[in-house]
Amino acid sequence: MIAELVSVGTELLLGEILNSNAAFLSRKLAALGIDLYHQVTVGDNRQRLRQVLETALGRADLVITTGGLGPTMDDITRDVVAEVTGCPLTPDGEILAALEGFFAARGTVMSDNNRRQALVPQGALPIPNLRGTAPGLFLSLQTTAADEPSAVICLPGPPAELEPMMEEWVLPRLARWSGGRVRALYKRVLKVCGLGESRVEDLVKDILDSQENPTIAPYAKPGEVHLRLAAKADSEAAAHKLMAPVEEQLRRRLGNHIYGVDDDTLEGVVGGLLAARRLTLTLAESCTGGLLGHRLTNVPGSSEYFRLGVVVYHNTMKTALLGVPEATLAARGAVSEDTVLAMARGALSCGGTDLALAVSGIAGPGGGTPEKPVGTVYLAVAAHPRVASNPAGRVAIRRECLRGNREQIKHWASQAGLVLLRRFLLEQLEAGSCPVPTSDSS
Amino acid sequence: MIAELVSVGTELLLGEILNSNAAFLSRKLAALGIDLYHQVTVGDNRQRLRQVLETALGRADLVITTGGLGPTMDDITRDVVAEVTGCPLTPDGEILAALEGFFAARGTVMSDNNRRQALVPQGALPIPNLRGTAPGLFLSLQTTAADEPSAVICLPGPPAELEPMMEEWVLPRLARWSGGRVRALYKRVLKVCGLGESRVEDLVKDILDSQENPTIAPYAKPGEVHLRLAAKADSEAAAHKLMAPVEEQLRRRLGNHIYGVDDDTLEGVVGGLLAARRLTLTLAESCTGGLLGHRLTNVPGSSEYFRLGVVVYHNTMKTALLGVPEATLAARGAVSEDTVLAMARGALSCGGTDLALAVSGIAGPGGGTPEKPVGTVYLAVAAHPRVASNPAGRVAIRRECLRGNREQIKHWASQAGLVLLRRFLLEQLEAGSCPVPTSDSS
Repeated sequence: MIAELVSVGTELLLGEILNSNAAFLSRKLAALGIDLYHQVTVGDNRQRLRQVLETALGRADLVITTGGLGPTMDDITRDVVAEVTGCPLTPDGEILAALEGFFAARGTVMSDNNRRQALVPQGALPIPNLRGTAPGLFLSLQTTAADEPSAVICLPGPPAELEPMMEEWVLPRLARWSGGRVRALYKRVLKVCGLGESRVEDLVKDILDSQENPTIAPYAKPGEVHLRLAAKADSEAAAHKLMAPVEEQLRRRLGNHIYGVDDDTLEGVVGGLLAARRLTLTLAESCTGGLLGHRLTNVPGSSEYFRLGVVVYHNTMKTALLGVPEATLAARGAVSEDTVLAMARGALSCGGTDLALAVSGIAGPGGGTPEKPVGTVYLAVAAHPRVASNPAGRVAIRRECLRGNREQIKHWASQAGLVLLRRFLLEQLEAGSCPVPTSDSS
Repeated sequence: MIAELVSVGTELLLGEILNSNAAFLSRKLAALGIDLYHQVTVGDNRQRLRQVLETALGRADLVITTGGLGPTMDDITRDVVAEVTGCPLTPDGEILAALEGFFAARGTVMSDNNRRQALVPQGALPIPNLRGTAPGLFLSLQTTAADEPSAVICLPGPPAELEPMMEEWVLPRLARWSGGRVRALYKRVLKVCGLGESRVEDLVKDILDSQENPTIAPYAKPGEVHLRLAAKADSEAAAHKLMAPVEEQLRRRLGNHIYGVDDDTLEGVVGGLLAARRLTLTLAESCTGGLLGHRLTNVPGSSEYFRLGVVVYHNTMKTALLGVPEATLAARGAVSEDTVLAMARGALSCGGTDLALAVSGIAGPGGGTPEKPVGTVYLAVAAHPRVASNPAGRVAIRRECLRGNREQIKHWASQAGLVLLRRFLLEQLEAGSCPVPTSDSS
């Protein structure tokens, strides 16, 4: 089975955006074992799109287009696909009703342009778009049962719309539709925190080098390292059999630096640890400006454990809300061990929670000094005596020297905060000073 | 002058890397006014690369390839370009010497594979590569002076090698080589908030349709719309002359929905308005979880006006920190006009600032009800009497019904908060109730 990707959009030809859709779709096709020989990008131009689609249909069984499905006159994909496949556009009642609902919910009026989005090439199935107005299209071109099946799939350009449509609607159907002509590539990603890429590679290099199926590839991500295992197999069970012993070896080397797998996020894993122990958390942020709260609350259900965040950007607020002594701020500065510890303790009491995490640092570009250059960040965790009976186990402090621009330092600082909190939960609390509370700890 | 990009590399077809080279080269060509109609990606396969190059040479004056110039057997670009153009490969003494120097400097031995890198199609100029072993190639195919010039340029795949080669060697020569057939493309982006894409298009459709130089293209971004003006001109001044009257027309239609241009961000513009008026701000966030604080503090210098953010995720915190009456929470719920207004007023007093912005909503996936479905968000701004002497001008409230997943709703809610605060600053405060304070308002 051969596929071809056709990306439609003048903004791609002008280099204004990166074609992340092509990479995403290519990965998904590779995972299904579908061969991809060409990716072609063309602008919002009918004649050129027609030529590109005709060429693609001539050499591929499956053509996936992205972009050009919006409501404006520039959005030509729907029209040209109808022309090239000879399936005339007809209005689809279901899409029209969905569009009307979309606009009614917003209390806004639907324009005639939006109405064009309800037109589909005859015989095409609309692919529901829950995040935008442009539905996708699945047009099977198989005319008789004896034919090799071929198809055109049209997806909208915004990745936030395209990706879930591909994952939730297209992929399950593609696997079925391709009828066993594909040998799948199964992947599993082990996610590592608290170790740099070269350190991870040093620890597991011999395992990486000796593997053929699954292959293992390390990827450096901001503040973490991912190890991707990829096995070619005829079934998920067979892939699991190949990957499980290799994963076991990697886990023996990397221990609990492996915080999760696949779609796990560090904020989700930390949230899971808090929820499992029925612990509550307050955040006191300074340089991260709210990013830690943002990340933790990206996790559905985070209201179970996340009570309160305070972004004490101005020093007077550190004193007013968290009781950081003015003398400490004056003597040690806002970016210091004493201040971040006072912030964590103040946050614990302000939020009335079991745990508090505090961050204070210099995100730049200004504000650095020779002793505390831009990127200096202090982090502290404080625990309430009811969960950490041993006084020595009630706090953890860390200093980081991060590099990058303002946004990168904010991200790395939030990452360091989550790593510190996770380690505290796993090591200090599990060490015995903290029995999982049996009563509601809130 | 028409160009075509051919990216060579199986890793691109597997989606393992993003094709950032295509975006980079496209931007550079656009800036020179060279039209790019197709970007094609093909794997390390001779037959398919040959077809792709033949097609490209048939429809473009300038073909730029990336990738496939390395020392391994997979690196086929050099060979296939020689074949397709009929210029046989011959060893280049200068490249060989440079390669020998490269390896000598590293104290390593040059392999026979590396020696292949010194082969060039007859007549091609080598493009020096100061960061790697693979030199680029510039092959002019103009045979007589009367011909339209055409050329093939081959660049290596790693962006760290390709980008400086393009900037330092190719671009200066391209401008000269094209002999005045190119006119540079100058761009300006107008950024619109508070209006949807179709509404923007309805308001300015006649202007969009009637424009040829500059062209105008609308782009929907999360929570905003960008209008990109692109003028072909011989100089920046000439481009400005073409664009200024069109921008003026657009500004008359869209008024202060246009919040900025080019690299402006909404958080940066709102910050600028606060800084210019020497006003200070407190944030009270619930469903956005800290994202508003994160966005505002991404702006360098935001500590001038941003004092405090509180993320009152738990209802008891809304009461404890912001004085939201328990009765209001019980009767109206946390997501209501009364609650968000009490949050804004409480935040004003908690932070002791001139202004406060509060957001409360349901980010989902759980928590929705028929009256308040997931995506229901209330927003409020409150101003201190010292900056808004007219009581009617002291608050602004808005309800939004947003769609998407949890992260999208959070983003749109933060966007709506910034839009509301900006409008409040521009309209209510500028309406006269708020003289710019002459004393330090903090």
